[in-house]
Amino acid sequence: MTLANRSLVTIDDLSNGEIESVFSLADKMAGALDRQTDVCQGKIMVSLFFEPSTRTRLSFEAAMHRLGGSVISAVDIGATSLAKGESLADMAKIVGSYADIIVIRHPWEGSAKVVADYAGVPVINAGDGGHQHPTQTLCDLYTIQKERQTIRGLKIALLGDLKYGRTIHSLIFALAKFGANILFCPTPGLEVPQNIIKKLVTEYGGEVEIQPAVEGKKRAGVLPMDAVYITPSSPHQLALMPGINFDLELKTGVDALYVTRPQKERFTYDEGQGINSSLVVNKEFLKGKEFKKTLVMHPLPRVDELAYEVDADPRSMYFKQAARGIPIRMALLALLLGSREVAVREEPDFFRSKVNYPIYKGGYEVTCPNPVCVSVQGTETKYLKPEFKIVSLEPLTLRCVYCEHGFEPKYIASADWHEGRLDTKKYHRADSHWARTIKPENLIVFNSKSEAEAQGFKPSRYAGAGHPGGD
Amino acid sequence: MTLANRSLVTIDDLSNGEIESVFSLADKMAGALDRQTDVCQGKIMVSLFFEPSTRTRLSFEAAMHRLGGSVISAVDIGATSLAKGESLADMAKIVGSYADIIVIRHPWEGSAKVVADYAGVPVINAGDGGHQHPTQTLCDLYTIQKERQTIRGLKIALLGDLKYGRTIHSLIFALAKFGANILFCPTPGLEVPQNIIKKLVTEYGGEVEIQPAVEGKKRAGVLPMDAVYITPSSPHQLALMPGINFDLELKTGVDALYVTRPQKERFTYDEGQGINSSLVVNKEFLKGKEFKKTLVMHPLPRVDELAYEVDADPRSMYFKQAARGIPIRMALLALLLGSREVAVREEPDFFRSKVNYPIYKGGYEVTCPNPVCVSVQGTETKYLKPEFKIVSLEPLTLRCVYCEHGFEPKYIASADWHEGRLDTKKYHRADSHWARTIKPENLIVFNSKSEAEAQGFKPSRYAGAGHPGGD
Amino acid sequence: MTLANRSLVTIDDLSNGEIESVFSLADKMAGALDRQTDVCQGKIMVSLFFEPSTRTRLSFEAAMHRLGGSVISAVDIGATSLAKGESLADMAKIVGSYADIIVIRHPWEGSAKVVADYAGVPVINAGDGGHQHPTQTLCDLYTIQKERQTIRGLKIALLGDLKYGRTIHSLIFALAKFGANILFCPTPGLEVPQNIIKKLVTEYGGEVEIQPAVEGKKRAGVLPMDAVYITPSSPHQLALMPGINFDLELKTGVDALYVTRPQKERFTYDEGQGINSSLVVNKEFLKGKEFKKTLVMHPLPRVDELAYEVDADPRSMYFKQAARGIPIRMALLALLLGSREVAVREEPDFFRSKVNYPIYKGGYEVTCPNPVCVSVQGTETKYLKPEFKIVSLEPLTLRCVYCEHGFEPKYIASADWHEGRLDTKKYHRADSHWARTIKPENLIVFNSKSEAEAQGFKPSRYAGAGHPGGD
Repeated sequence: MTLANRSLVTIDDLSNGEIESVFSLADKMAGALDRQTDVCQGKIMVSLFFEPSTRTRLSFEAAMHRLGGSVISAVDIGATSLAKGESLADMAKIVGSYADIIVIRHPWEGSAKVVADYAGVPVINAGDGGHQHPTQTLCDLYTIQKERQTIRGLKIALLGDLKYGRTIHSLIFALAKFGANILFCPTPGLEVPQNIIKKLVTEYGGEVEIQPAVEGKKRAGVLPMDAVYITPSSPHQLALMPGINFDLELKTGVDALYVTRPQKERFTYDEGQGINSSLVVNKEFLKGKEFKKTLVMHPLPRVDELAYEVDADPRSMYFKQAARGIPIRMALLALLLGSREVAVREEPDFFRSKVNYPIYKGGYEVTCPNPVCVSVQGTETKYLKPEFKIVSLEPLTLRCVYCEHGFEPKYIASADWHEGRLDTKKYHRADSHWARTIKPENLIVFNSKSEAEAQGFKPSRYAGAGHPGGD
Repeated sequence: MTLANRSLVTIDDLSNGEIESVFSLADKMAGALDRQTDVCQGKIMVSLFFEPSTRTRLSFEAAMHRLGGSVISAVDIGATSLAKGESLADMAKIVGSYADIIVIRHPWEGSAKVVADYAGVPVINAGDGGHQHPTQTLCDLYTIQKERQTIRGLKIALLGDLKYGRTIHSLIFALAKFGANILFCPTPGLEVPQNIIKKLVTEYGGEVEIQPAVEGKKRAGVLPMDAVYITPSSPHQLALMPGINFDLELKTGVDALYVTRPQKERFTYDEGQGINSSLVVNKEFLKGKEFKKTLVMHPLPRVDELAYEVDADPRSMYFKQAARGIPIRMALLALLLGSREVAVREEPDFFRSKVNYPIYKGGYEVTCPNPVCVSVQGTETKYLKPEFKIVSLEPLTLRCVYCEHGFEPKYIASADWHEGRLDTKKYHRADSHWARTIKPENLIVFNSKSEAEAQGFKPSRYAGAGHPGGD
Repeated sequence: MTLANRSLVTIDDLSNGEIESVFSLADKMAGALDRQTDVCQGKIMVSLFFEPSTRTRLSFEAAMHRLGGSVISAVDIGATSLAKGESLADMAKIVGSYADIIVIRHPWEGSAKVVADYAGVPVINAGDGGHQHPTQTLCDLYTIQKERQTIRGLKIALLGDLKYGRTIHSLIFALAKFGANILFCPTPGLEVPQNIIKKLVTEYGGEVEIQPAVEGKKRAGVLPMDAVYITPSSPHQLALMPGINFDLELKTGVDALYVTRPQKERFTYDEGQGINSSLVVNKEFLKGKEFKKTLVMHPLPRVDELAYEVDADPRSMYFKQAARGIPIRMALLALLLGSREVAVREEPDFFRSKVNYPIYKGGYEVTCPNPVCVSVQGTETKYLKPEFKIVSLEPLTLRCVYCEHGFEPKYIASADWHEGRLDTKKYHRADSHWARTIKPENLIVFNSKSEAEAQGFKPSRYAGAGHPGGD
């Protein structure tokens, strides 16, 4: 099977079988890193880095060179073309006519999807804002797989900034997809976003237990867990004993401890003032029984959350994670460029149900409320139309197809009103029963009453000012 | 014939025959872009970009890699060596000893010529301030040639910023050289500079008709033309009917419409305030009969002057223009590096008369009045001597050999005065008959009376204070 | 013999025999620069430039490409990873797992040593602050060797900024190591640092004569010499005639004149105000008899200290120096990567005695007083322990193993005091006889009395407040 001409924008773009195939090609290449220079000869990769990055870019470029390919790169390009007002679509089409594959990092969430939509060549997302960073996730999974031979049924603790880390977001869904259990151990104030929890339950079929109280979180040697995700493959009784799961989970040991640094560059002002984690993973911390065989992981760079004294510990995996980025990216580049083909296990993903959500294509200027979403940027609105998945009716929830941000609009109407019969041109509260009765293809949403009324809609009896959800 | 060791600083550095040879090699290479990796193996190209640029640099670098060559690049180097006070000549000599060919972009006009003079290896100008950008012009011409099989006799409309666009300036002379007619359609306030019009008439032998009045320019669907250049090859009767040429030209259809963005980064403050073009080339605009078969071109990046809805129109050529930059630059690199040779039609250029203007080498500190000319920069005056072509005697007009900026000095004198006979050491107004009587090799020019008198010259009767041209 | 897996951090990392072997391989490669593309095929060099540089980086990258290798580079990375708080050790380990060899330029002195200690692959120092720039020195030596066939016994004048030029510091020791005599001709205020003079005498065995008076320095055509270094190989009588050496040295002619620009970017504020050299090496200056056969050298870039009119003079060597950077760096890369092996003359260095100084590993927070030393930077103190060579006992002098900065601590104590017997826990002045009696392995140093007392030490009778060296 060929992966040629495919793009990797989110980790979901690859099935479990395909990811395993990347791993098995990486295994082969890792055995002879310097003897692969015939694989991509004559091919050109372009690195487009709109945000500073050294490690990720150098890793991709080293991988392409190890394959015998060429690299052209544009680093920190915020100041150049964008200053001239160029759109991502134009940039994508043009560099897509120069090179055979594009690797892009960009601060706008959803930007990699836009580039993939327009480039005409395969695109790899090397980080789009706080959204995803799927190749980091591949390195993480590959490391777990290599060290534990499987991912299914393992218990992985995520520690630190679970709110802003894009590597964390990609990793959560990947772990769920492969049937791992997740212990959420956030720095207080940097908990995992609600829409990720929801997606886990809806699309991956597992259960999430929330820690009822905060007390006790800071007991020495105890993980500051606030939630547990248990896949359908795990013993169900755990989920039936709310409140004690947390201790149970720890007693049987943690398979991997994934530490992250606070993504201070994405903090709001208030967060910048208030959040201060003093938890340091050091020798002392790792003395706990539950960490006896734990893989200590970190996407790097680290700041103070992971002590240098751990480096010499055989449980430390973070430099191996980084080094494995080379064979993983080599395998991925070779496959997407069509320079190598691999056998792919064809069976469907077990732990992930592909939901075909109805699509809301907007109209009346409903836009994604995420200010760093690619779809709301001045240069991009000239050609991009907002588009949302209707992921839930109660409450009515839309998810932007670009940045995957979810939101709940307040008012709705039906496009199915009759010209001339203005009494049918009415709007309703989104939390009224109308959300379920209007057909998706007729749905119109508004963020405020004034927006609805500006379009000529009148309030129905389900849009009353005194009701919850009022303007 | 070999083009090895030649440089491309202005589009005039290549004869028509040589340009056609570049095109025919580009044709061959375009058929197998990924099978040319043996052409420049072992050769090194250096990109020196003193101004931000993504597209042009990536295009050159991709081309070099497609040829199997290597690339070293220095991007946005304003902050490094120049900060240490290094001159272009030193930089040129040094990198010329590292690499086999230099591609340079620099904000100073004439900088590419200086680099070519000192490097010892071939140099390609990738844009020197507002002066020239000859490889963009090659892509433009190549696109017209591919789509229309010829350039001679075509009618090309140039739309937008005709004042600051360096791509426009290179293109105008190239079109004239190949016998095309040009319709000038500037954004008001951004008309093509006078010295370009003059050069067209003097050196390319055609005629320029200026639109007498501005009225009517903004009729819907009508190009805002203010001048027409008609080559000697076009039916002469057109030129005999002043005033109606403009309509006639349009009735028979426009072969190509070359749209440009306002080069706001080069605007003066007043221009920044006042100029505001609302003309947008969109589906509606292109409905006019005269555009039925028009190639819609743009050097990109675009801002708002060209609507995205045109992208899907078969007349849109701008992404093809960009893509054709690869085979064009491959052919050019291979030829200048001597890695390929081609047959070149030997006959002289038909539409361009090579004028051997006398040279004025200055003295008495006459310098180019263009503040972004390379010859007046502090680091360069240590070794560069100003040098000018005397392109006209009435009025006396000098053209800088570096930036090609033309200017009319106010006062002149003859170096042929006799020591001891101070009555012959006199200066005159440049617009007096003396301009024609002083031999070019004796000519001395001054920009002011005080400058002349500081050098010991006294006013002649043709330098009176009350006369026009006074200090 | 193989140089594979060796690093080049300071010029002393290579013996004279090894340097000569680099030269002889460079000779071979220089004869066919463009036919070496099989030497390093499949190898990757990474350029890590934390300070702007164009020339040095391009020279390394061109050399690697000429060898058929690949290059990945991170330029001006101050703003990226370091902003995220990453340490040099982490960066070194990670990129060391991507590439086969690292070339680093960094503003912190000693940074290249840290990278070499952690990378796991060979590291080449391309300039670490004001410390060293050993490959520039190799180019300098190679040029002298090529033009004069030997370095031993030559007379080399160093002119300009001898205080901040890292190329100067590397060069001084290299010249001494090969038995050359050095004439120090500093711009007043930019004299060579004392610790370099001391090291010359102690470790290279020669003699340094200091010019007694400043008068006469500015006689036209006379070098502004203030010190002469005479190697053990030179006629001893010179050293016996203090005061007239300076004139004698000049009368017999100078073999090379090494001119440097003022390193203004490293000046203190006061230096920036006061230092102003008006000495320009131009045709007039070089008319002196002593310069008849002098090689005029400069590491470039130049500012105003070396006139362009000298460029055409056959004595000018500076563009040759730059061009020779290619074969020298090719040879060095090929050797350190193990792609080539060479015969190395095994005899020990004649002019340099490798002194095995005792090591002081600190304790009680004694840190290097050099504010740009790598060992005192916030990101590095998390894992680096200060370490010093005890290079002298009278006065007690420590030399940082990272930046090689020397300093004289004020107070000392012995770690050999007996628990419970506090009368032995005393500190002394470093200039008392105790400095010689405390065994190096027991030595403790303090920079102030309060520091000593904070650690529980009491003053001995050799720590009196009135004595010299008091707090």
